[in-house]
Amino acid sequence: MTITEFQKLIEATYFTRDSARGRERTFMWFVEEVGELARALARTPEDGGRNLREEFADVLAWLATLASLSGVSLEEAALEKYRNGCPRCGGKPCSC
Amino acid sequence: MTITEFQKLIEATYFTRDSARGRERTFMWFVEEVGELARALARTPEDGGRNLREEFADVLAWLATLASLSGVSLEEAALEKYRNGCPRCGGKPCSC
Repeated sequence: MTITEFQKLIEATYFTRDSARGRERTFMWFVEEVGELARALARTPEDGGRNLREEFADVLAWLATLASLSGVSLEEAALEKYRNGCPRCGGKPCSC
Repeated sequence: MTITEFQKLIEATYFTRDSARGRERTFMWFVEEVGELARALARTPEDGGRNLREEFADVLAWLATLASLSGVSLEEAALEKYRNGCPRCGGKPCSC
């Protein structure tokens, strides 16, 4: 699945609600998910890693919705900066 | 570009360095990028949104590297949870 397809899937699922909530409050929900990811990373998985995968998925989903609320294409932004490897040294791998 | 292709691009660019740094310290760098995204979101763009796009790209890149350090495929995790829309109500759009 492309990054854009995922962003559009999240838009189709949540854009109306997230748009009504507003970008600032949506950012706060995003940060809550970052906290849940921290918790999952800090603990020893007891479920085969399912919760950890869910938390990664959630952070990605909330990042996608924030991008949509900002009129930003995550995929275009990602390619613009990282397409050729490290944006500082141009290396892949980075040799900064 | 698929989510997996982006994750592999970031791995090719940064995995050796990020792996040596370790997951906990890499998480702290990720959170620093989340802070930079907050700053970009809270300000009025004066550069046509370039900085905001960069911050979205950076958060996505650090999330990808954290997933790699955790042995998680971001794309598989995203599809596992969101493929059919809202994982709670099954709606697309969500009607929770």
